[in-house]
Amino acid sequence: MSSPKPILVVAGVGNSSGTGGATARLFAKHGYLVALVARNADNLKAAAEEIKKSGGEAAAFPISNYEYSTVIDVFDQIKAHNWSNGKGEIRVALFNSAHGVWKPFLDVTEQDIQENVQVNILAAFAFSRQAILAFKENNIDEKGRRGTLLFTGATASLRGNVVTSGFATGKFALRALSQSLSKEFGKENIHVAHAIIDGGILTDRSLERHTGDAKDNFQNNLDIRLSPESIAESYLYLTNQDRSAWTWELDLRPAHEKW
Amino acid sequence: MSSPKPILVVAGVGNSSGTGGATARLFAKHGYLVALVARNADNLKAAAEEIKKSGGEAAAFPISNYEYSTVIDVFDQIKAHNWSNGKGEIRVALFNSAHGVWKPFLDVTEQDIQENVQVNILAAFAFSRQAILAFKENNIDEKGRRGTLLFTGATASLRGNVVTSGFATGKFALRALSQSLSKEFGKENIHVAHAIIDGGILTDRSLERHTGDAKDNFQNNLDIRLSPESIAESYLYLTNQDRSAWTWELDLRPAHEKW
Amino acid sequence: MSSPKPILVVAGVGNSSGTGGATARLFAKHGYLVALVARNADNLKAAAEEIKKSGGEAAAFPISNYEYSTVIDVFDQIKAHNWSNGKGEIRVALFNSAHGVWKPFLDVTEQDIQENVQVNILAAFAFSRQAILAFKENNIDEKGRRGTLLFTGATASLRGNVVTSGFATGKFALRALSQSLSKEFGKENIHVAHAIIDGGILTDRSLERHTGDAKDNFQNNLDIRLSPESIAESYLYLTNQDRSAWTWELDLRPAHEKW
Amino acid sequence: MSSPKPILVVAGVGNSSGTGGATARLFAKHGYLVALVARNADNLKAAAEEIKKSGGEAAAFPISNYEYSTVIDVFDQIKAHNWSNGKGEIRVALFNSAHGVWKPFLDVTEQDIQENVQVNILAAFAFSRQAILAFKENNIDEKGRRGTLLFTGATASLRGNVVTSGFATGKFALRALSQSLSKEFGKENIHVAHAIIDGGILTDRSLERHTGDAKDNFQNNLDIRLSPESIAESYLYLTNQDRSAWTWELDLRPAHEKW
Repeated sequence: MSSPKPILVVAGVGNSSGTGGATARLFAKHGYLVALVARNADNLKAAAEEIKKSGGEAAAFPISNYEYSTVIDVFDQIKAHNWSNGKGEIRVALFNSAHGVWKPFLDVTEQDIQENVQVNILAAFAFSRQAILAFKENNIDEKGRRGTLLFTGATASLRGNVVTSGFATGKFALRALSQSLSKEFGKENIHVAHAIIDGGILTDRSLERHTGDAKDNFQNNLDIRLSPESIAESYLYLTNQDRSAWTWELDLRPAHEKW
Repeated sequence: MSSPKPILVVAGVGNSSGTGGATARLFAKHGYLVALVARNADNLKAAAEEIKKSGGEAAAFPISNYEYSTVIDVFDQIKAHNWSNGKGEIRVALFNSAHGVWKPFLDVTEQDIQENVQVNILAAFAFSRQAILAFKENNIDEKGRRGTLLFTGATASLRGNVVTSGFATGKFALRALSQSLSKEFGKENIHVAHAIIDGGILTDRSLERHTGDAKDNFQNNLDIRLSPESIAESYLYLTNQDRSAWTWELDLRPAHEKW
Repeated sequence: MSSPKPILVVAGVGNSSGTGGATARLFAKHGYLVALVARNADNLKAAAEEIKKSGGEAAAFPISNYEYSTVIDVFDQIKAHNWSNGKGEIRVALFNSAHGVWKPFLDVTEQDIQENVQVNILAAFAFSRQAILAFKENNIDEKGRRGTLLFTGATASLRGNVVTSGFATGKFALRALSQSLSKEFGKENIHVAHAIIDGGILTDRSLERHTGDAKDNFQNNLDIRLSPESIAESYLYLTNQDRSAWTWELDLRPAHEKW
Repeated sequence: MSSPKPILVVAGVGNSSGTGGATARLFAKHGYLVALVARNADNLKAAAEEIKKSGGEAAAFPISNYEYSTVIDVFDQIKAHNWSNGKGEIRVALFNSAHGVWKPFLDVTEQDIQENVQVNILAAFAFSRQAILAFKENNIDEKGRRGTLLFTGATASLRGNVVTSGFATGKFALRALSQSLSKEFGKENIHVAHAIIDGGILTDRSLERHTGDAKDNFQNNLDIRLSPESIAESYLYLTNQDRSAWTWELDLRPAHEKW
């Protein structure tokens, strides 16, 4: 009887051109079964197909919203999922979802705040709860781990700024959650980590915001923007740290970033 | 024609034995009209009466909840209020409301999070919005101020910890809001400040949590707990800073606090 | 028999147009005997004379350098000084000396570092040692204080930056010292505080660095630069905090500062 | 003609049972020529021999002290060194030296401070200067790097505490240096990183401080102390990050560490 394969759950995959997608692909290459969670079912299915074509295993778990109960439910679906090679166990969970509002404060509406809170706080609590409950059922592996819970942070996790009142609140809150969980569950050999992404990430969407030479530069100049693949590498590194030296937080930025 | 008197709005007065009540009393002594906002109408009315008996002026604005629209509304009531000595203008607003959850993470319910978010984020945004809109109508006074917006923070504003996942998220978010507002509205001569209260505050409620000698000590030993009156002094100091040297953040703790 | 008058020791007075001088004048007005410490004897004597003319009491204690033993010695001189109205006791000590190097890293010389270390670390340790030894001989006063030790910090106390390698090292170190002392001596009712001055301070020297309209603006526009007098007010406030609510750190910046 | 091999310079190797030694061994295994710098010549020679026996290449560069000029000189020796396989170029430099003083503040002597400053500031500046000058001569490699400068930090890099006035000052200063350099030289494709080691590291010396069961536990329980080998892995990871996602700072602590 073979041991169960490790499952990575990723929430926030978008069209898979960003951090969530890159992490899914990298972990799939390293033998993880990948459970993809996001709101766009078509994108999600395409992302799963892409991984399967490359020899990995992935399944799409689309959600209609980021309500607390929705996130609880989708984790239950993942737990019940029949993978083609038999049973897996959830070993890594990446909360990569984000909902940001960059607006002058007086333009921020109640709905903006509600949506921000929905994703960055309510969904994050539900996601963390399910991940930790799943991890607690795992045995401690050879590296001293029951599971690894990863969060994607941003510059706004550390600094509020002009036009970021609606974004920084959610990101500060998420950082607080990750630090609290790190302290509470480290002693149960559950590793919680938080990455501060301090710079622009190359994704389809961010690329569209550039034009002309700037677009070309943003796409090709690795000194000035983050590659999703490089962020994914850092998540793999964090996951593979052994129990004697775990990182809660690291920052990641391009070489030429002004900070 | 006399100039309008300055109004202090305080949200989070409780039974007035804590920071909100002490700040109201101190500012009343310094000539402010005090608008008291909290959920318990009886307590609030008593607090207003106490201030009036001491020669100050105060009015109670009870609210039934901390929903966004409720907080927007109560500010409108305050703006429309007829003070006995004529018109006032809102010059200082203290957001002292807090809703904390100290529980192991797995005991934190969706409702716990919702309530936390309601007070610390939605109500805080609504309160800040109304305060800033009011300040923008004020002229710049002799100290270079249009208004002062104060927030009460806590140790959990800076550090997540075991059993504080449900508290630190809200407090981190509030800190992010205050820093963002400070940067966005400083250039309009609106002063935003955030006080980190790092220790136990003597209030009726906190006193009840002690018994025997510890209770006596907590009540009388000023080296080991914060006096609401001392915190109020710091809010008065922050309010009176002139435009050339404004503080965004300070910490406050008893002399003997271990930190 | 009257009780001894409180002495303020200020190190780093320059030509008295800055923070050190303003603090000396303000505390003198509030009844403190002021001991002035700096390297320029003529400036120092003039500063003492100015305070005396305004009805205060001050004495100049010039030093030839910021070596450890020099700072130890000058404190001994202050302790032995005969004030015109009899004996005083050292109750407040402000370490306002600074030595900064703003240079590209590769231009920073060994001597630059040595001078930086001399003032910001060695002199600071000697100054703190003497202040704390003096405070320990004081009784606890009505506000719960044996003494107050104040440090002037800067933006570079919190953030290293391009061209500040030689400045931030000293300022970070000074902040570490102040925090360590705050934690170690709070329980002996000695208050240690650190002010982050985040912006340009109006002094004779900083004014000279501006020309034309910018000079006029820097001199007269209180929204864009710090007044030494306002910083002094914050030091007086910190000194007067009672034992139940002491601040270790606050930031101070002009209303319109971009940060 | 083959390209030059990469050299790792490590300062602070002790008896090679700690972080410096483990990093040297790991990088040697990955093809680096290792230049070992420390004060004990015998230990250093033994460490170099051990690496050679395992098939790596290493050379010992003992120094008699951590004076600025001594550190400048030893780097010149390393640059001039003839490695058995021909020329190398300095690609990675780890400043792992530390000098700490854990004493009540009033027991800290002038000499304690001088020694602390010597290692943590003067030697660190000299080491950084030489590393950066060496890196500037390198071409940019396939990962976008000219060189990687690593610093070992500690809990005391972030927090002053009781009895750490003499340790935290040096560690705060070192952190300031690393952050300044990171910002100044990132745009020249030189990567500067700082690791916060938050917990006890298993070394011969730290093991000696334990007795009985606690000793056994400290040696064998990977949940409660850091392995030098795990820290070394993190240094290798930081070195291998590509230019699009560089970390300045990460923390490392055992799974069960209370923090």
